[in-house]
Amino acid sequence: MRRFVWLLAVFCFTRAAAQTEDSLFIKQLSEEILLRSTAYENLRVLCKTVGGRLAGSTGMGKAEAWGQQTLSKAGANKVWLQECRVPHWERGKNEAAWYTVKGGSAKIKLNILALGNSVGTGPAGVTLPAILVNDFSDLEAKKDQLKGKLVVYNNVFDNSLPETFMAYGIDGAYRRSGPSRAAKYGAKAVLIRSISGSTDNYPHTGSTSYDTSLPKIPAAAMGLQDADKLIALLKAGKEVSVFYRSNAETLPDAVGHNVIGELTGSAFPDQYITVGGHLDSWDPAEGAHDDGTGCVHAIEVLRALKAMGYTPRHTIRVVLFANEENGLRGGRKYAEEAKAKGEKHVFALESDAGGFTPRGFSVSLPPAKLAKWDAWVPLLEPYGVYRFVSGGGGADVNPLNVSLGTAVAELMPDGALF
Amino acid sequence: MRRFVWLLAVFCFTRAAAQTEDSLFIKQLSEEILLRSTAYENLRVLCKTVGGRLAGSTGMGKAEAWGQQTLSKAGANKVWLQECRVPHWERGKNEAAWYTVKGGSAKIKLNILALGNSVGTGPAGVTLPAILVNDFSDLEAKKDQLKGKLVVYNNVFDNSLPETFMAYGIDGAYRRSGPSRAAKYGAKAVLIRSISGSTDNYPHTGSTSYDTSLPKIPAAAMGLQDADKLIALLKAGKEVSVFYRSNAETLPDAVGHNVIGELTGSAFPDQYITVGGHLDSWDPAEGAHDDGTGCVHAIEVLRALKAMGYTPRHTIRVVLFANEENGLRGGRKYAEEAKAKGEKHVFALESDAGGFTPRGFSVSLPPAKLAKWDAWVPLLEPYGVYRFVSGGGGADVNPLNVSLGTAVAELMPDGALF
Repeated sequence: MRRFVWLLAVFCFTRAAAQTEDSLFIKQLSEEILLRSTAYENLRVLCKTVGGRLAGSTGMGKAEAWGQQTLSKAGANKVWLQECRVPHWERGKNEAAWYTVKGGSAKIKLNILALGNSVGTGPAGVTLPAILVNDFSDLEAKKDQLKGKLVVYNNVFDNSLPETFMAYGIDGAYRRSGPSRAAKYGAKAVLIRSISGSTDNYPHTGSTSYDTSLPKIPAAAMGLQDADKLIALLKAGKEVSVFYRSNAETLPDAVGHNVIGELTGSAFPDQYITVGGHLDSWDPAEGAHDDGTGCVHAIEVLRALKAMGYTPRHTIRVVLFANEENGLRGGRKYAEEAKAKGEKHVFALESDAGGFTPRGFSVSLPPAKLAKWDAWVPLLEPYGVYRFVSGGGGADVNPLNVSLGTAVAELMPDGALF
Repeated sequence: MRRFVWLLAVFCFTRAAAQTEDSLFIKQLSEEILLRSTAYENLRVLCKTVGGRLAGSTGMGKAEAWGQQTLSKAGANKVWLQECRVPHWERGKNEAAWYTVKGGSAKIKLNILALGNSVGTGPAGVTLPAILVNDFSDLEAKKDQLKGKLVVYNNVFDNSLPETFMAYGIDGAYRRSGPSRAAKYGAKAVLIRSISGSTDNYPHTGSTSYDTSLPKIPAAAMGLQDADKLIALLKAGKEVSVFYRSNAETLPDAVGHNVIGELTGSAFPDQYITVGGHLDSWDPAEGAHDDGTGCVHAIEVLRALKAMGYTPRHTIRVVLFANEENGLRGGRKYAEEAKAKGEKHVFALESDAGGFTPRGFSVSLPPAKLAKWDAWVPLLEPYGVYRFVSGGGGADVNPLNVSLGTAVAELMPDGALF
C-alpha cells in the first residue's frame, strides 16, 4: 500500500513545469511515501480500535473522531465536519437460519448475514418452504410457484472473468434487486449466495434496494459452503423448510458527517481538488479494504505533500465520505453543498476498489480527451501504473461530476482493471 | 494465482492461426484454469505435507515423490527423474545468538538464521567483539580493525525502490559476498540484516558464497527488529560482545533429481518447450512463494492443456528443478544433458519470482527482436499482462540459453516488474 498512496498524490498538484521536473517531484513523493508513510499504521488504528462503522452506529462517531485527529496530525490546514442525515439501519441481535429436509429431523445451520437495509422477520422468525431460483429468467419461469415461499437464489459468482470486480457487479444484481423481484410474485423471504468468488463459508453482506411499490421482505446472504449444500438438496428435489430470524430494523435517520481536511492552495485557494474514500463500513468486520484503504490513501496524499513542504496551487480537500455503503448521503451532500456555494471543483479522485496492487485509473472523460493523459504514462510507468481508461469515478465523487461537471476518477487496483 | 497459471500456458502452444483464433483459445484456456485450476490445492499439499525441502534433506525426497505424483495426475504422457548430484548442507540443531553490552550483565537474544552454505561454529559457539560495518566502503575503511571480530553489517534494504526485487538484488550482495569480504581482513564471523523490506523480526535466510581462497567464517542473518537494536548500540559506541553458535555443516554431495513430466508434441515431438520452477526450498519454512508457486504454475500448464484436449505441436516439458537455492545443480544438469543428447530446445520459461499479481515477462531477446512480441499484447491485455522486457530467464533456465542459445523467459509478477 505504501506504493499506492503516492499515486493519488500525483494527481493533486498542478504544475506547468517540464516532464523532467515532474519526474523528479514524483520520485521525491514516492520516496516520502515509501519510506515514511503512515498509511498502514493509520489503517491498523482505524480497523483495530474503531472496527465496523456503519452509518448511525457508535462506530460511525468513533470513526469521525479518528478521521479528524488523523487529518490534523497529517498536517491539514483545517479540518471540519460536514453534517448530513444518514440512514440508520441496525442488524439487531440473534440473527440465525437453519433448515430441515422433509423426512429428516436434523436442523442444519446456515451461516447467514442479513443484507443491509433489509427488514427483519421479528424475534419469532419465519419458517417457510424453500424454492430454488437459478437466475432472474428462472424467477420469471417460476413466478406462479413463489407465493408464500422463501426464494433461494443460486446466483453463482462468475469466476471465469479475470476482472473480479466485473463478476462482483454482475452477481450483485441479485443482492440489490433479488428480494424485491421475488416479492413481486408473493415470496416471503430471500436467501442469496454471498456475492463472492471465494470458497470459504463467511457470508458477505451489502445493501439491498427495495422497490418501494412492493412489500419489503427479509433477505440474507449465505456462506458459500452452506449455500452449496442447501442448493444441492433443492436441485435433488428435496423438500426443504427454512427457518430464518432477523431483528434488523431501520430507525429514524441519524446525524452523520463527511470528515474534511484541507491543504490550502497558494494560487487558487478557492478552487478544489478532492481526494477521498468512504469512512463507513459494514458492521460485522473491520472494513480494511472497503474502504479503510481509501481513507488512508487520501490522508497520505495530504501528509506526504505537507511533509515535503509542497504547497499546492489549488486547494486539496481530503474527504472521508459518510454512508457510502447504504445511502450515498455523504457523497451527495458534498456535491449539493459545493453547488449551493458555487464552489469550483477542478478534479476529484476516489479510492474505493481495495488496497490491492495499483494498475491505473478510471476517468470520466471520453477516450479522445483521455488520450491526452497518455503523456503522463512515462511519469507513472516506473511505479507500475500505466492504464487510464474511460469510465466513471467512484460512487462518492460521481455526484460532483453530475452536478458540476467536474472530471472525476477512481484508482483501479488489480481485480478492478487490467 | 488461478489467473497466473494460464499465462505460462499461453507460451506453450505454437500456432500459425489468426489472432482471433488465438484469442478464443486463450479465453478457453483462461476459463479452464480460472474455473478448474488445481494449482492452489497442489500448493497446499506441497507446503503442508512436505514443507521445507532443501537439497539433500528428507524433504527433498518427499517433494520429488509429490512432483511425480502430481505430474502424473495432471496428465503427463510420461514422468521421470533426472538424477543430479546436489550439495548437502544442514543447518544443524541449537542455532543461537545473543549479546552483552560492556558494563551490563543481560544476555540479549538475537533471532538469527545461519546463511545457507555457511560453516558452523562448532557446538561450543564463539564469543567475539562486534564491529559495525555500514557497507562495503566502510568495510574497506575499517579493514585494519576487523581482525578477530564479528562483523555486523548494517545492510539496510532500500525501501525507496518501488521494485522490491531490485532492492533485494542489491542488498543480497551482503549475504552472498559479505562473509568472505570480511574474512579477507581477518574477521571471524558475520551477522547481516535479513535481506528483506519487512518490519518483522523473522530472520530470512539464503545462500552465502565463499571465496575459496579465503577462510570460511560462520555467517547468519538477524531478524530486523533485533538488528535495529544491536546496531543502535554499536552506533552509540557501546562495546558489544556477541555469542554465536551454529552447528551448520556441509556433508558429502547427495543424489537429487529434476522431476520432469512431458506432454508429447504432435508435429515436433523431439523439439522441446520447457516450463518450470524449482522444487527445493529453504529449511525453516514451507517455500510457498519460493518456489512452490513456480512448481504449481508449471504443472498447471500441462494439466490445463491436457484437460482441454489440446495436443501441442512441440513437446512440452514441465521441469521441477532440483537445488536452485544453494547450488543450481538441477538447472545445470538439465542443460548439460540437453546438450549432450543434441536436443532441440525452442523455448524455456521459468516462474521463480513469487505468486504475486502477474505483470509480464522478462525475455532473453534484445529489444529489437522483442518488439515483435508486442503483437501478442492485445491477446494478453484482457488478462492484465502487457509488458515484455528484454532481460534474462530465471536461474534454472538460463543454462539452456548459455549452452544451446535457447530463448528463455521468466514470469514477472508485481514487485519484480512494472
